Parts: sequence; C-alpha cells; structure tokens
Amino acid sequence: MATPVDTWFSTHRARLDQAVDACAERSAWTPFIESPSGKLHPPGAKQQGLAWFEARLGQPFPLAMPGEVGRTGAEVSPYTREPLGIDYPAVDVDELMAAARAAMPTWRDASVQTRLGVCMEILDRLAKDVFANAFATMHTAGQGFMMAFAGSGANSLDRGLEGLVYAYKAMRDIPPEAVFERRFGGEPVRLRKRYRLIPRGVAVVISCGSYPAWNAYPALFANLATANPVIVKPHPECILPMARAVQIARDTLSEAGFDANVVTLAADTRANPITKALLLHEHTAIIDFTGSQRFGAWIEENCTRADVYTETAGCNAVVVESAVALEPVVDAIAQSLCLFSAQMCTAAQNIFVPASGVRVGDTRVSPAAFADALVASVDRMLAEPKHAAGICGALQTDAIEATLGRLADHPGVVRAATPYAHPQYPNARTATPLVIRASAPDSVYQQEHFGPVGFVIEAESAEAALRHASDDAGQFGSIANYAYSVDPSFCAAIEDAFAERGSSVGINLLGQRPINFTAAFSDFHVTGLNPAGNACLTDLAFVTRRFRIVQSKTEEPCPASTTS
Amino acid sequence: MATPVDTWFSTHRARLDQAVDACAERSAWTPFIESPSGKLHPPGAKQQGLAWFEARLGQPFPLAMPGEVGRTGAEVSPYTREPLGIDYPAVDVDELMAAARAAMPTWRDASVQTRLGVCMEILDRLAKDVFANAFATMHTAGQGFMMAFAGSGANSLDRGLEGLVYAYKAMRDIPPEAVFERRFGGEPVRLRKRYRLIPRGVAVVISCGSYPAWNAYPALFANLATANPVIVKPHPECILPMARAVQIARDTLSEAGFDANVVTLAADTRANPITKALLLHEHTAIIDFTGSQRFGAWIEENCTRADVYTETAGCNAVVVESAVALEPVVDAIAQSLCLFSAQMCTAAQNIFVPASGVRVGDTRVSPAAFADALVASVDRMLAEPKHAAGICGALQTDAIEATLGRLADHPGVVRAATPYAHPQYPNARTATPLVIRASAPDSVYQQEHFGPVGFVIEAESAEAALRHASDDAGQFGSIANYAYSVDPSFCAAIEDAFAERGSSVGINLLGQRPINFTAAFSDFHVTGLNPAGNACLTDLAFVTRRFRIVQSKTEEPCPASTTS
Repeated sequence: MATPVDTWFSTHRARLDQAVDACAERSAWTPFIESPSGKLHPPGAKQQGLAWFEARLGQPFPLAMPGEVGRTGAEVSPYTREPLGIDYPAVDVDELMAAARAAMPTWRDASVQTRLGVCMEILDRLAKDVFANAFATMHTAGQGFMMAFAGSGANSLDRGLEGLVYAYKAMRDIPPEAVFERRFGGEPVRLRKRYRLIPRGVAVVISCGSYPAWNAYPALFANLATANPVIVKPHPECILPMARAVQIARDTLSEAGFDANVVTLAADTRANPITKALLLHEHTAIIDFTGSQRFGAWIEENCTRADVYTETAGCNAVVVESAVALEPVVDAIAQSLCLFSAQMCTAAQNIFVPASGVRVGDTRVSPAAFADALVASVDRMLAEPKHAAGICGALQTDAIEATLGRLADHPGVVRAATPYAHPQYPNARTATPLVIRASAPDSVYQQEHFGPVGFVIEAESAEAALRHASDDAGQFGSIANYAYSVDPSFCAAIEDAFAERGSSVGINLLGQRPINFTAAFSDFHVTGLNPAGNACLTDLAFVTRRFRIVQSKTEEPCPASTTS
Repeated sequence: MATPVDTWFSTHRARLDQAVDACAERSAWTPFIESPSGKLHPPGAKQQGLAWFEARLGQPFPLAMPGEVGRTGAEVSPYTREPLGIDYPAVDVDELMAAARAAMPTWRDASVQTRLGVCMEILDRLAKDVFANAFATMHTAGQGFMMAFAGSGANSLDRGLEGLVYAYKAMRDIPPEAVFERRFGGEPVRLRKRYRLIPRGVAVVISCGSYPAWNAYPALFANLATANPVIVKPHPECILPMARAVQIARDTLSEAGFDANVVTLAADTRANPITKALLLHEHTAIIDFTGSQRFGAWIEENCTRADVYTETAGCNAVVVESAVALEPVVDAIAQSLCLFSAQMCTAAQNIFVPASGVRVGDTRVSPAAFADALVASVDRMLAEPKHAAGICGALQTDAIEATLGRLADHPGVVRAATPYAHPQYPNARTATPLVIRASAPDSVYQQEHFGPVGFVIEAESAEAALRHASDDAGQFGSIANYAYSVDPSFCAAIEDAFAERGSSVGINLLGQRPINFTAAFSDFHVTGLNPAGNACLTDLAFVTRRFRIVQSKTEEPCPASTTS
C-alpha cells in the first residue's frame, strides 16, 4: 500500500526543481508568502495562529523527548515582560544522543528522494504554520509582527529550501553506482562499483535568540537531507518557535514511518545550560552555531572533532562618500538602525564619513550635519509609536538595555536611546537608536554592540573611511556592509576594498525596502573570510562535508565462479 | 598580441570536458599514458628522462626561491643507498609566505578559465615529463620503475586532473553575476549582484615519502584552480619529484605572465624540519597532508585556523570467507603484500580467516593451510629476483627495516622478511613480506606497520572475521579493505559492515591486476569517516571550501541619479 511518503517527492518535485533553478540564477524567487494579508491565507489563519500561541502560555509544551529527566524553560516575552510559563522536556544528553543515533540508520537507508520528499513536506507544513510561528517569534525574539511573519516565515523557509537544494545538488553529483571496465595488461576487468552516501552522525543546531528560524532552517534541512539526525538546541530565551518546528518535523517523520527522533529538541535555561555538553559530546559530528563571535570562536577552536559551521556577528560598516541627495541616504541608514532595533546580523553600526564632508551635488555635508540629518531621520521614522512598534519591535534581552546603558555617557552621544511607548504592550522592552559621534580609529566602535547603536565616524578622507571600514571588517568581522557614492571609480574601489578583506557590500541601496534585506536564492550570506563566521548560507561548501562517500566494488561476472 | 595563456583553455578544453564527464560517469578513463613502451612516446624519451635525472646528481637543483637562506637536502637513493647529493633552496618561512601572498592577487584576479588553462597546461607538461619523474620517484620513494612510471605518472596526473575538475565544477556553480528584480511594497527594485570567488590564502601541501605525486597533485591543482598560492613541502627523503613538478609549474606560470611564486617549494631535512613552522604560520589558510596518522591527528587538532585535509593510513583488512578456488585468492593477497613492499596506503595488512577454515568448494582450508598457501604464493611470486625487483621496489627508509626487525621475533612468524637480491642495484634496501599468524583480537595487528607485513588472523567464525575487520577499520582507520566470498548474502553483509564503519571495500578482486589499484575518476579514495584521514580524493567536499564567495550588490539604474 502506498504511504504518503511515497508521493511526497513527486508532490513537491516542481517546487524543488524551481528552487534548483533559482539557486543557479540567483535572481528573485520564493514559493512562500511574505504578506500576512488575509486574502492570501485561509480564512481565520491569523486567529488560529494567535489562538495556538495563547493556548501554549502557562502550559507544558506537548512534546516528549527521549532521555527526558524533567521539564525546563524560562522564556519571558519581550513585549509583556511576563514569563511565558511554557515548559519543555529537560533531557539527559547521553540518552538524547543515543536516541538520535538509533534513529539514524533507517533514515540513512531511505533514498535521497524519500528524504527530500519528507523535508519538502516539513517545509510545506511549516509554511502553513507561519502565523503560529510569527506569534511565537514575536514573544520570544522580540520581533515586530510583520518581521516575525515575513522574515521568520517566508524568508526563513526560503533559506531552509535553499539548504535543501544545495544538499540535493551535492548528493546528485555522485552516481549511486558505476561499471568500471578496462584491460590490465591483456586481461579485461569489469567491476561493479557502488557509492553510498553516509551521514557523519548527530548534528547539533544551535539557534540564536533574535532570528532563530532564518539561520537554523538551512542547517536543519541540509542535515536532514544528508541523513544526519538533528538535535535542535534553541537559545534559552527563544525556545518556542524551534519547539514548534521540531514538533512539526517529528510529526511528519512519524507519519512517513520514520523514527521521530531524527529530529529532537534540547531545551535549557541560562541557569542550567547544556550547550557545551552537547557540543563536546563524543557523538556530535556536526555543529551549526548562530550566536556571539566569542562563543563561535570557542567552538571553532575546541570542537575539532566535529564539522563546524558558524555564523556570528561583526561590526557592519557604512561608507558615505557622496550622494545626489542626502535624505534618501540617511533614511536608508536610519531604517537599518531602527529595524528590529538593529538586532539583525545585517544591521549597520559604523557609519564612516569623510572629515571634509559628504559630497551632495555641489555641497559638502559635514560629519556634524550628517549626524544631525541621521538623527532627524530616525526621529521622523519613529515619531508615531504605532509605526515605531512595527519597525523596532522589542529588545530581546535585558543585556541589550545594559549595553545601551554602558554607552549612554559616551561624550559623542548625539541621540539617546530613549524608549518608545508600544501602543499595544505598555511593558514592552523598547529602545530607539543610540547615535554616537566618534573619530577613526576608536576601539569603542571596533566591536559589535548588539542592539540599536550607530556610530557616525569621522575619517580623514573618503579613502580613509573606506580603508577603516574594510580593514575593520577583515579584522573584527562583518556580515553586511553598505556604501554610498555617485562616483563610479569610488564605487569600484568600494567593491575591491571589501572583497580584499573578505566582506560583502551593498552599494547605493535606497528606497523603502530595508537595506538589511538578504534574499535566499540570491544573496550569499557570510563569507567565511572574516571573524563573523566560517560558513556561508547557502553554498556547496555548506553541505558537501555533511555526508561522506563509502564505496564498494565487486568483480563481475562473479570471478569466483569463472576463475579456478 | 595574444599570449600563450589566451589559448591554453581552448587548447585543453576538450580534455577538461571529457574529464568532467568521466567524473560524472565514474567509469574507466584516462587521457594519460600508463605504459612506458617506446612506441607510445617520442624517440629517446626514456633516455632523456634518465639523463635528466643523472645530471641532477651531486648538483644544486636549478631552482631559486624567495627567502632563500641557504641550501638544504639529504636524499639517499633506496636503490644505491648513496646520497643523491642534490641541494635545494632552504627558505625563511616568513619570507616565503610573504612572497606567496604577494603572488596571489594577480592569480586571483585572472578568470577561472585562465587559471584552468594554466593548470591544464602544467598537467600537460608534467605528462611529457613522466620519464624524468619516474627516475626521480624511483630513487627517492623507492618505487620500482613500472610503478614510478604509471602510478606516479599517468595515475597521479589523473588524480590531479580530477582535483581540477571538481574545483571547476564547484566554481562553475556560482554565476559571476545576477540581476535581482522584485517589488518591495509597491516599489520596484533592481539590483546588480556580483559574486567574486576569493581564495582563502596560502595553501601548504605536504607530500609523503612513498607516493608523493598521487596525493599531492589533487591538492596542488585544486588549490591553484581556486586561486590559492601553494607551498609544496615535500617529505625530506622525497624532494626531487616535487621539486621537478614545482619547477615545471613555475615555468608555466611565468610564461603565462604570472608571478612564479604562485607555486613554491619548501624543502627541508629530518635534522632541520620546517613543517610545523609552515603549518602554524598565521598566513597558512589551507593544509593538505599525506603521512602518518599520528601527525595527521596532530594537525587536525592544532591547526584549527586552517582548512585541513588529511590522508593518513590505517590497517587495511582482508576478510576471506570462501572461494571457488584458493590459489587466485591467495595470489591476489600475496601480490598486495609484495607490491611496492606494501608501502601503499591501499596495501592489505590484516587477513582474517575463520577458525573453521575458508570454504573452497566442498572443503575447508584451515587458517594454517591458508597461511601456508599465502606464503607459497609470495615465494612463487618473488622467486625470480628480476620479477621481485619489479614488483617490490625498495624500502623507502631505514625505519621500515626497523619495523621488520621489531616484528621478526613474533612467535607467529610463518615467513621471514628476507631481502631479495636486486639484479641491478646490489645495495638496494629490500625486503620480502613478513607473514605472521595471530588470533583475533590482538593489539599487534591493530595498528599500521608501514611496509611488507601481513597478518593471517584466525577469527571464531566468518561473521566474527567480518566484525573484527570492520570494527578495526572504524576504530584504527583503514583506506581500502578487501573480502572474498562466493555467498551473495555474505557479500551483502560485507558491504554493509564496512559501510557501517565508514570504510570502503573491494569484493572478490582477482586476476593479474593489483587489488590495490585505485582509479581516479572512478574510485573515491578515503572516506573521512575513520582515523585514516578526513578528506576524500576527489569529491566536491575536497574543493568547495578552498574558496569563498564575496558579493557586492548595487542598485540600478543608479538610484543616486534618479532619487532626490
């Protein structure tokens, strides 16, 4: 009898093929819905998502785990600052590892097509669950509703599908078998060769607190496609969206007849962390980490037994040399400082301007005037609390407030990180961008300050601004840089300088859309050439080591019967 | 004016395309000549190769290096046991690194096609130099002439070309640019995106003493294609073949107008080694290592800043369950023990037989009788000194003699490692296979004994033999395993057991050709799943991390001129 799993690959085949094409073209494409508009979703979808979220509050999350030794969880909504009151399985790491390993052989022995079909089906079910995911992400990560819906919904699903595509491409590159025929001396030889794709082992995916799905999905799906069982270890303050994704993946696996423990959850709290126990476990073969540069570096240095993929953070730069008009430029930068309170790894932080000023037409805008214009733009953008709420969301943790507090007395402050009043959640942990003036070089900005902090940095010249920005990118890490210039030769110098220091750059990005926006199937995210991470989302290098090839060869026709 | 480099890609295009197809099909293919027959080479080619080799003896090798601080080299021919008397540049590591880095930008900025063309031309010139390479390899590695010609010639060039193919495939996967068009809100956006392939940095390729070209060429060409400058660090007792290859590569690069320091040589001696200084240098971005498991593990553990590829060694097993006839099986195994004195990473070492005997037709061949038959086969194979010389070659180092000495008193010895008399070189360092009987498990065979040592190991049953062999492969490492059985279900169990422990296996390999033979474009060499190495020759994982992608995106049409 045909089971659902037999049809899933063919059901989703067209979407997969389109995604393969999109990765080759790298133009704009998505099969998922970015807008929460009621017209585009089944009636009541948003209400159902909200109802699902509200029903979780104060309740045990309906998920059992192998090696469960109790319950854990201490999430607090950045909007209400109330505990969510949800608890999750607390696990014994050895038992969880054993269960993950036990689930592997059947999953490994399934065909690539079967695994791809199951993964595509999981993605499809996650896509139908985007409202629930959006509310879960809002009240853990602190994202505004629109970002939680689109960025942690469609855009994250895109990245997951992209991870799947590259895994598929890498595995398709190896034929399952071959016949080898030649003569040695005069003697003909015929060997049948078989190439098996073997997973490395248990994969631990550590998701971050601010943007969990976007980075975790590519790792999750690349690992699943290549047959590695995955233990998802969410940030202790952002468990719910990942628990929901794990639940959906497990249900899908079970329905397909596989051991649900191919995907498991390892939740913890800050007070009782289990991350290092997972990372250093003898059975951990693959690690995907999103989080701080410091911990990422520790993993790269210490987890040498595992295949390690990191995406951490850096101090992203903006170089402003010239523009036709000032306002679109400062608006674009201001938006990057405001958007999700600059808690995105692509948010701008260090804005370099020449001491002689930014050329705008025939005039020069001095660093002071530029900073004033930026502050004015931020103020305009956030004047309406409702609009501020939509764009800024909430600060994910108290630690960000502490960062803002530490910098508040800096002598260069030109805009304080005043909170805005959230119209719906009066207790929301909010802040508007802190803007500080500085002169290059200064150690104060040569590090990431996670949260809404921007430095307007005066450099000796436009060339020096570019040099400082690109050198810092190479030395301290950066994920996305930006630059503005109407001079084609300076634009070329911008491209070269950032490429030379292993960092990506967006030039003259303006308009309504966020300059931070990073498109799956088109943008390569993180270069691996600077301290902001060693892996790229998503390229072949992200997937090719997640499986290995074991071959067997057998002489044919059976020589034992013909040679004597 | 067109220079040679402009035509090289098109000149070699057909060969490259064929190689791409061969890697996809993984059948038998080579564009190089395996036979030294005079009919297949220009008149006098062999004599010229010999003359080249002889002219090197006692002379400075004509190669200058940046950072040269003197001369070094202490090679001794395993055949004459006389010093070759050749010296090479001794280098200051910092200066060599600086020169390699200085050579990188121009090479990086050349197109992929240009780099591929130069690499194909280097391969072609190496292919025309196979006789010189053969004599150089004989008198350093100790290989017999035929192996030095074919194995270190055509077969190694195949592997180099294969490395090039995978690098080409991986780079081709990324379009150089793309146009990204979509609407954000109602606003159309058009971005021109550019994806640059950026090399990681200086690549150090450490070649081994016994089979230098076969492992070094894939790394050399994969690195060059992806624009990383390469420092070749040959084994101190096997410098000449690599110095020759470096010389040819440098000449080709210079002729193409590139800095010759894209490829450099770092020679040393056992007394004054520079390997660790190279490996731990801050500018070393990629390491390819062939050599001992111990040093390979040290590199994997300590060189965490670099991208590390290792191929080390293991104790390769043979499981003998049953056969139609005994003699072809023992002949095949005996040949593996004799061939190049088992100094190949694919040589068999641990031969497991059931205590109840090997089934041959209706009879059982006891372990004792099996060992006797194996010894008799070895004796037959090596009875003629001329034939022995052809098959065994010479022992590369005194250390192998020491190994044989340490094992000589083992109570299980059934065949001593007596030397054979080389008809041409009376002083040659030779040994015939030492054969020892043991019972499973025994730590004596659970490690690699580099050189001509075989253990006939009695296991409780055929199933136990397979279990011991495959478990040891997983735990102690193995590169190639072998098995013999006329029982299809046992053959299936063999494939599964070795796959389960991450190790490859050849089943029922018989006939005249060496069971050790590993074909580029067809066999995947090393799985990366056991301690015998972390990398495979050659697959996508071998190349995809050798470069990274840096992107830039620019808004078009120039928004600075349209927005105001």
